[in-house]
Amino acid sequence: MKIIALDSSGLVASVAIVEDDTLIGEYNVQYKKTHSQTLLPMLDELKKMVELDLSTIDAIALAAGPGSFTGLRIGSATAKGLGWTLNIPLVEIPTLDGLACNLYGTDKLVCPIMDARRNQVYTGIYEFTQIEGKGRVKGEALEYQLLDILPQCAVSIDELAFKCNEQNREVIFLGDGVPVFREKLKELLTVPYSFAPAHMNRQRAAAFAMLAFQHMKEGKVVAAKDHAPEYLRLSQAEREKNGVN
Amino acid sequence: MKIIALDSSGLVASVAIVEDDTLIGEYNVQYKKTHSQTLLPMLDELKKMVELDLSTIDAIALAAGPGSFTGLRIGSATAKGLGWTLNIPLVEIPTLDGLACNLYGTDKLVCPIMDARRNQVYTGIYEFTQIEGKGRVKGEALEYQLLDILPQCAVSIDELAFKCNEQNREVIFLGDGVPVFREKLKELLTVPYSFAPAHMNRQRAAAFAMLAFQHMKEGKVVAAKDHAPEYLRLSQAEREKNGVN
Repeated sequence: MKIIALDSSGLVASVAIVEDDTLIGEYNVQYKKTHSQTLLPMLDELKKMVELDLSTIDAIALAAGPGSFTGLRIGSATAKGLGWTLNIPLVEIPTLDGLACNLYGTDKLVCPIMDARRNQVYTGIYEFTQIEGKGRVKGEALEYQLLDILPQCAVSIDELAFKCNEQNREVIFLGDGVPVFREKLKELLTVPYSFAPAHMNRQRAAAFAMLAFQHMKEGKVVAAKDHAPEYLRLSQAEREKNGVN
Repeated sequence: MKIIALDSSGLVASVAIVEDDTLIGEYNVQYKKTHSQTLLPMLDELKKMVELDLSTIDAIALAAGPGSFTGLRIGSATAKGLGWTLNIPLVEIPTLDGLACNLYGTDKLVCPIMDARRNQVYTGIYEFTQIEGKGRVKGEALEYQLLDILPQCAVSIDELAFKCNEQNREVIFLGDGVPVFREKLKELLTVPYSFAPAHMNRQRAAAFAMLAFQHMKEGKVVAAKDHAPEYLRLSQAEREKNGVN
């Protein structure tokens, strides 16, 4: 199984080509260009570097939201274009699930946070648990799976801190919400916590690919024409149309 | 502090630009091209994408060995050229230390293995421990550091398995030695273990950058002209010259 994974849900633009256990290539950029200037040129560059034959690709995985509305639309449009043209399915990965996979294998809780503006964060609380039955036979390797304790949602940082404290376990935070809410977390948290370092603290399409393989095994794919991003909230234009602030 | 990190010690070619807590960009490729075809073109591509002004770079970090002899030489030559031209120091990161940092934050032992041929692996056994004093004050974040239980070395897979079993703790394996020695490990290990997934199982220059910042704080840098890779073993040509097999 070989897939292309894309992420433009936040500040990072990220593309990856993964075949089973092998990360053939990934290209991640966090820079002040719009995703329309980066995402497709990065994929084109990577495709050339690894001499990728697009006809060998089985699916397109993408960060399906929440995130920046414009970013999500660029990612979705790119994925739909690729999927429709190549006649292959899309695999929609919830953005916060994909972010959490940066910390695969940790025993701590994982809490990705993205700044959702209007005093909210997109977030979730996750843990990695052993897959039952794996590693029981002598000599067999253990495997871990991502479980959500709090599925992705839009909440205030106060509410998130409250939910983390309730868990009474150490938490690792990551995501572009960290620099925004670092001081607030320090004030609110009563559980031990840490922040993921630079190489693990933002979206990586390669981590989304890991979840995509699991989704594909479970048949959780969609046709390119049927995909739409999951915004979790109304856009500003929709709120204004509805007379809500 | 802004650095460029390079890795061409194994099958992967990897470049990253990191500024403090921010991974500005990374480009990783695992493909059947030689590192002389990939490493510098990848850096050039990334430099253009993030409009990098080379005069803002404080140091060049690199995977300083062990690894493929040719790969290490390409990485070292590139780093020396950059460091000498820009008049900035090099930060030599032991390859296995850098690989281990892919699993930052895990409570399990981390064991990177690279196929060293001649029935040996380049390896080490690592753990992440809390930095003392951090997180003691109410609300402060914890921080973790990499410690080596077995510093990087060249040993047989049997000896490595013996050393892992001695630790009596769960181990996560990663590196290009995994596909080669997977069955052998299954046979020899008595401790629980798992394998890192695709997005964490090979060299990432960005992970080397994390360690480079720590080395720089401790003043562990070298002048470009003084750097040489750490091969850990004699090359085949040297062995033959010495009449050893």
